[in-house]
Amino acid sequence: MVSSIKRFLIGRPLKSKDLGEQKLNKTKALAILSSDALSSVAYGPEQILIVLLTVSAAAFWYSIPIAVGVLVLLIALILSYRQIIFAYPHGGGAYVVSKENLGLNPGLVAGGSLLVDYILTVAVSVSAGTDAITSAFPNLHPYNVPIAIIFIVFITILNLRGVTESASFLAYPVYLFVLALFVLIGVGIYRILTGQVPAGLHTPIGTPVAGISLFLLLKAFASGSSALTGVEAISNAIPNFKDPGPKNAAKTLAAMGTLLALLFSGIVFLAYYYGTTPRADVTVVSQIAEKTFGRSFMYFFIQGTTALILILAANTGYSAFPLLAVNLAKDKFIPRMFTVRGDRLGYSNGIIILGILSILLIIGFKGHTGQLIPLYAVGVFIPFTMSQTGMIVKWIREKPKGWVPKLITNATGALISLIVTFMFFLTKFIQVWPVLIFLPIIILMFHKIRKHYEAVGDQLRITTCEAAIPIEGNVLIVPVAGVTHVVENSINYAKSLSPEQIIAVYVAFDREDERKFEEKWKQWQPDVRLVTLHSHYRSIIQPLTKFVDTVQHKASESNYRVTVVIPQFIPKEGWHHILHNQSSLLIKAFLLYRRNIIVTTVPFHLKK
Amino acid sequence: MVSSIKRFLIGRPLKSKDLGEQKLNKTKALAILSSDALSSVAYGPEQILIVLLTVSAAAFWYSIPIAVGVLVLLIALILSYRQIIFAYPHGGGAYVVSKENLGLNPGLVAGGSLLVDYILTVAVSVSAGTDAITSAFPNLHPYNVPIAIIFIVFITILNLRGVTESASFLAYPVYLFVLALFVLIGVGIYRILTGQVPAGLHTPIGTPVAGISLFLLLKAFASGSSALTGVEAISNAIPNFKDPGPKNAAKTLAAMGTLLALLFSGIVFLAYYYGTTPRADVTVVSQIAEKTFGRSFMYFFIQGTTALILILAANTGYSAFPLLAVNLAKDKFIPRMFTVRGDRLGYSNGIIILGILSILLIIGFKGHTGQLIPLYAVGVFIPFTMSQTGMIVKWIREKPKGWVPKLITNATGALISLIVTFMFFLTKFIQVWPVLIFLPIIILMFHKIRKHYEAVGDQLRITTCEAAIPIEGNVLIVPVAGVTHVVENSINYAKSLSPEQIIAVYVAFDREDERKFEEKWKQWQPDVRLVTLHSHYRSIIQPLTKFVDTVQHKASESNYRVTVVIPQFIPKEGWHHILHNQSSLLIKAFLLYRRNIIVTTVPFHLKK
Repeated sequence: MVSSIKRFLIGRPLKSKDLGEQKLNKTKALAILSSDALSSVAYGPEQILIVLLTVSAAAFWYSIPIAVGVLVLLIALILSYRQIIFAYPHGGGAYVVSKENLGLNPGLVAGGSLLVDYILTVAVSVSAGTDAITSAFPNLHPYNVPIAIIFIVFITILNLRGVTESASFLAYPVYLFVLALFVLIGVGIYRILTGQVPAGLHTPIGTPVAGISLFLLLKAFASGSSALTGVEAISNAIPNFKDPGPKNAAKTLAAMGTLLALLFSGIVFLAYYYGTTPRADVTVVSQIAEKTFGRSFMYFFIQGTTALILILAANTGYSAFPLLAVNLAKDKFIPRMFTVRGDRLGYSNGIIILGILSILLIIGFKGHTGQLIPLYAVGVFIPFTMSQTGMIVKWIREKPKGWVPKLITNATGALISLIVTFMFFLTKFIQVWPVLIFLPIIILMFHKIRKHYEAVGDQLRITTCEAAIPIEGNVLIVPVAGVTHVVENSINYAKSLSPEQIIAVYVAFDREDERKFEEKWKQWQPDVRLVTLHSHYRSIIQPLTKFVDTVQHKASESNYRVTVVIPQFIPKEGWHHILHNQSSLLIKAFLLYRRNIIVTTVPFHLKK
Repeated sequence: MVSSIKRFLIGRPLKSKDLGEQKLNKTKALAILSSDALSSVAYGPEQILIVLLTVSAAAFWYSIPIAVGVLVLLIALILSYRQIIFAYPHGGGAYVVSKENLGLNPGLVAGGSLLVDYILTVAVSVSAGTDAITSAFPNLHPYNVPIAIIFIVFITILNLRGVTESASFLAYPVYLFVLALFVLIGVGIYRILTGQVPAGLHTPIGTPVAGISLFLLLKAFASGSSALTGVEAISNAIPNFKDPGPKNAAKTLAAMGTLLALLFSGIVFLAYYYGTTPRADVTVVSQIAEKTFGRSFMYFFIQGTTALILILAANTGYSAFPLLAVNLAKDKFIPRMFTVRGDRLGYSNGIIILGILSILLIIGFKGHTGQLIPLYAVGVFIPFTMSQTGMIVKWIREKPKGWVPKLITNATGALISLIVTFMFFLTKFIQVWPVLIFLPIIILMFHKIRKHYEAVGDQLRITTCEAAIPIEGNVLIVPVAGVTHVVENSINYAKSLSPEQIIAVYVAFDREDERKFEEKWKQWQPDVRLVTLHSHYRSIIQPLTKFVDTVQHKASESNYRVTVVIPQFIPKEGWHHILHNQSSLLIKAFLLYRRNIIVTTVPFHLKK
């Protein structure tokens, strides 16, 4: 039944050779990999205005030069990542680039912070989208957390179904959102050009503003830069592209950059020209839409697609997290299970764990994940900086043809990213400090895991010089609880293996019991040696393990192996389990885990 | 570490032969077995007044005749249970008496309703006691549920330490409570006799009251009878008494009856004479105490011991539940684990489960378990009625010397209990109806469990006429994952058992992998047959179980047994487990539970 529910939810399993069919064309790739970056247009411009508002509404004209700065950063990042795509066609992004050029620990800093960041992406964007929906339907507000969880479960299942299916599904809302915003910007600019918007709504560019400071402008710039989170996703996901992967990825990246730049500048410009002031209850995009269309169909269309894309931004995390996890797991820094492809050829463990962790985050923050946004932004700009710096090192070291312009591109990207990172620490330290705690912890954990895997490898490797200790014979111990078919079954099995010695062990609680059982045994199995143990404390396990220890001690002297043969009841119905003392499980735990004893479990299936 | 915490909490284990030392003398037995009954003095009289208040305060004089009725019922019950004690010296109370005389299902009705009732006792009395404490310290009020849980955990640990230790500990508060109430009643009566209390506070007995009805009086009587819950506990617990058990139990029962009668009449009388009106915020006992002593030390002493005894009333549940569970488990109606004595010779499974279930009840009702009181009372009077009826049948059937007065005693008890039971259904149906749902469910469950155990017994029993199928030989299947020490270990073990056939099985994910591994294997283990399986769907378990099925099918034709030898990593540290795919556990589950395959687990302990 479990398996048919699974089939229903994620579809029939796919063969490994079908992997090629699961790859993405550019249109679909753009939809699922750029939802995070594009969705940030919905809140990025607003972030700039919120910071400027702390001085006065007259300072709003600064949003134009700040937006230019963000666009420069965007162009630098897009060009830099384009170069990364061609230099590292197998994907991996910041982690691989930093590791190869800057060394292991910088790589782990980049990888670790991205890994955490994708979890934050999912939590933050799904809660933001849920907020947008429950703002429209206030009755639903108390159910924010369960609604967000339902969305995450839905996106998780979509991704477990496979990357192409989720792409086909997600392409519509993403392109509808882009279309909606283009219509908004187009109509807005048309109305301005045709003079339908009064010109006096905004302060002219260059108006002197009292109280403005460089610190404040940098803070506004850093806030605006949070609109750039997600641009690295494509470079991580090259293996998901149809061949030729790097070329397709680069084209998709360019398309995303262009869309992002156009939408971002359009919204910033309209917000400025309309003199929009950020408000707690209505978003800036919503205000612009209302001013442009009134409360018409287009207004609700823009609101709806915005809410949708905020939720679907989570999908970028789902595309990038599992691939990054594979890279880290291949290098043995996180559990091996992340490298296993699931039924539908996606890295299902990564997808499931991402879903679980982001649900936990949402529950932990009761859906108020807005507090996490700065943390999330700084967690993106650290790997941005590291990967660009890595590329600088690469160009200087390798000096390929035409390396100077490449160097300049990456150096610009690195410098701006570094400045933005510093800005975050400087202006939002209160929200950003946890990164200084958890990054070292994560990196320590990476090293501990790697160390363990390497130790295991050493212990498993067969070297020619050492010879295994030969096994000279076997002792089989059969704990018996009575004269029953179960015991008969185990004893017959033990006999059939014809070991050097069989010992039946009975644990008696009193003398009378002991005498009776020994008599019965002598009649029933006269040829099997019976040892009776006393249990003063009514425990079966204690005397048994003590006895097994003694046997083991003697056996190891002559290179004999000790095996304990344990019968296990398998009841017909699940609930019957609680009706049977689970001694066999306990015995197994004590013998297998605490000692070096081989345990043979002979099932006894109850038929009714 | 777990084991040393356990030692600290419940003490060193006791040997089975120390059982005698764990038995109770009369003083201690009275303390731990009568806390439930005695504590009901704290609320029983109040229950009567609350019902009468629905007419008018003038009706309060009816509390005197009603109390006389309750006393008659008490005497009848005490005498009846005294006869049960001598007739059934091994304990078991209502369950055993009803089962032997009325038949199996009546016995299960009595047993099932008592079993649930003891859980209610614990939940209700601990919440009532916690309420009493948090009423005194209103700051603690929001923490009612956690405080109640702490009390239950404490009482559970006390009972796990053993019956004598808990008795020594609990004797003080119980006797202090009795002492406090006697002082209260004594001083109160002295003040009345010396004329310090004005005589006009109460309406004289016999004053006609408008609106009084028989229904109302019966309802008040039923409510007052809830003070009698707990009188059956001693008859269940005879095995806990020092020899001669029945005689000591009978004396203890008489002592308890006397104390209960005196305290109950005293409180009812004082409440009546003082003209006390029940109030939502102050209990009747508290009002009497304040009127008698003012806010002096004695007042707080009475309040404190009352709170304590309400909590300790739970202990009666802890004494009676495990013993009743043993009786039911011996008859195979509930899981066998209830018959096992723990480290300190108490039936620890019963104690722990009682604790867990009552904690769940308190959490489920958020500490407001007051709603459960009528349910709890009716759950006591059903077994009261059944056991008295059982005794009637016994006397008529056996007709021992002097059986007529015995019959009359039990018949009186049965009749009054039956009337009270009906009263509850008649007057409080809204709170009492769940008993009509859960009792049948519990009894059905009892039968299902018994049926399962009997079916198991049938399947295990060795009868002479049938012969076991002989085992002609063994096939050992060793799943291998590479050329490592782990595999070497398993293969060597398999060889040492020299079975008729060893098959190493390798699951390959692609052709290249397959070819390479087969070559390696030929060099490494040329004498062990290797079968390579293909996994199109990247699952190890599916092809493996399919292969095992095929082998099993062939093997069973010639009476061969199939054993799968699985290596299992045992990492040095617990957290390492998540770093290894738990395939071996999954394989075991598939082979053992779904099929009839023997599984041998060869541990491989990692040293670092």
